[in-house]
Amino acid sequence: MTKESISKRFQELQSTIVAELEKLDGTIHFSLDSWDREEGGGGHTMAGSNGNILEKGGVAFSAVHGDISDVMKKQLSLDGESFFATGVSIVLHPISPFVPIIHMNIRYFELNDGTYWFGGGIDLTPHYIDGQMAKRFHAQLNEICSKYKSDFYTTFKPQADDYFFIPHRNETRGIGGIFFDHLDEKCGLSKQLIFDFCAELAEKFPAIYSEQVDFGRHIAYNDSNILWRNHRRGRYVEFNLVNDRGTKFGLFSGGRTESILMSLPPLAQWTYGHTAELGSNEDSTQKLLKTGIHWLDFSA
Amino acid sequence: MTKESISKRFQELQSTIVAELEKLDGTIHFSLDSWDREEGGGGHTMAGSNGNILEKGGVAFSAVHGDISDVMKKQLSLDGESFFATGVSIVLHPISPFVPIIHMNIRYFELNDGTYWFGGGIDLTPHYIDGQMAKRFHAQLNEICSKYKSDFYTTFKPQADDYFFIPHRNETRGIGGIFFDHLDEKCGLSKQLIFDFCAELAEKFPAIYSEQVDFGRHIAYNDSNILWRNHRRGRYVEFNLVNDRGTKFGLFSGGRTESILMSLPPLAQWTYGHTAELGSNEDSTQKLLKTGIHWLDFSA
Repeated sequence: MTKESISKRFQELQSTIVAELEKLDGTIHFSLDSWDREEGGGGHTMAGSNGNILEKGGVAFSAVHGDISDVMKKQLSLDGESFFATGVSIVLHPISPFVPIIHMNIRYFELNDGTYWFGGGIDLTPHYIDGQMAKRFHAQLNEICSKYKSDFYTTFKPQADDYFFIPHRNETRGIGGIFFDHLDEKCGLSKQLIFDFCAELAEKFPAIYSEQVDFGRHIAYNDSNILWRNHRRGRYVEFNLVNDRGTKFGLFSGGRTESILMSLPPLAQWTYGHTAELGSNEDSTQKLLKTGIHWLDFSA
Repeated sequence: MTKESISKRFQELQSTIVAELEKLDGTIHFSLDSWDREEGGGGHTMAGSNGNILEKGGVAFSAVHGDISDVMKKQLSLDGESFFATGVSIVLHPISPFVPIIHMNIRYFELNDGTYWFGGGIDLTPHYIDGQMAKRFHAQLNEICSKYKSDFYTTFKPQADDYFFIPHRNETRGIGGIFFDHLDEKCGLSKQLIFDFCAELAEKFPAIYSEQVDFGRHIAYNDSNILWRNHRRGRYVEFNLVNDRGTKFGLFSGGRTESILMSLPPLAQWTYGHTAELGSNEDSTQKLLKTGIHWLDFSA
């Protein structure tokens, strides 16, 4: 498991995922936009829009290296001279309000002294939460986690609750999922097995999302559903620009802006004092935007 | 000039401005939304939408007081036990791509030891920059500044350039204006005169904006102009959520979210890799989104 082999496999995963998403959507095409980083390395961002299912989506790969800057030391609490980082990030914004927004990221970090760690996560942001589909999403994540370590899901699920939270709205971004960082051999697994876990998350990603798409794609929607979708997208923007540590670190450390902000929705809306009508479907969703829900046991 | 009298006058200015904006627009109505702050004080936010000229706008007044929290000490570099703060903030998002977005803020801060200062600013964000209208806007600000102190405009104009800048896009939010903070008697003016300066900015605000509205309101626009407007609004969102110190301070210190985020546009758009076509009107605007332009002497 050298950094070269990890990075190579990550890039292959990007290609596989893009191919499967293009198939799932039916008409979308993800165009390649390659870029170099002045200080070392670069990336391949694949972005698509106006598909059959997806209004906007991106699958980004990057492998960068260089000296550890002061901002990195401060923001990542790093100590060392130089680093290598590689990862795959995905954000998909569907057209239908009944198909959820999804995000996935796997990443690998290595310092010049040989220290390394993995990080990543998958989380789902339904515009309208369906309890059974939320349960299914968490069951799929739990199944992958359980293959590797019995406490992965129970540790990473609350971490996703904490991470994907919008304090100024006092609500979660969606139904969460799993989130992990600084994962290395101290967790009890070999480097190879941790890598396999990350790779399996990415491999299973298209199948996981495809169930969510199949559930929602044929549900009819009206203007009021679109309005709600646009406001939920507004919250997605707020989380990504105000709270997301990855986005902030990227922007403040001189990362590639377009690749970082590919996560933003195609169109988002803000209305002063917009709230869900009591007893409406929107209200039911709003009530579930909180941490600590045991989705695996959810019944409604 | 007690804090009570300043706050009272600020609230009166809010009412006057709202009345003048309703008249300028013709159909919009700004609804009052009053709120209390648990730790002391509160505010009156007046928000309107779907007018004749304005798609969304807010004129907010607040007067809050209480203990100085750790986050305030850190974010505002404050030393002291308790504070009082009052201000008026305005952000207007017009429908027409040829009418600019405008922002104004005047504020007063006082500590328990009697230390005080004023802050504020006005800046203009045209979706399409018209050189002569930008020149006119700066001339109006220069005229007000010059009545009070000869170096106000030359000091506050570059401060606006610095403040209303989006580093991750390497562009300014618009054509700037004036920005000042920590203004007290050390500037050479009495507290009364500094207050008068702030009040005059607010008093002149509707007339200043009205010239911009009158210039742009009758220009015909098409879908491609709307698309560009929506992308410029996207940048406005990015600045406000990523860079604006006032917004970040408000959100992180537990301010009232809806009142802080009334600055966000009704609808904003993001397209991966969206750029202006070479030689287009959009391109001309893009080229002017930089600091250091001497708008007073602008000729094109």
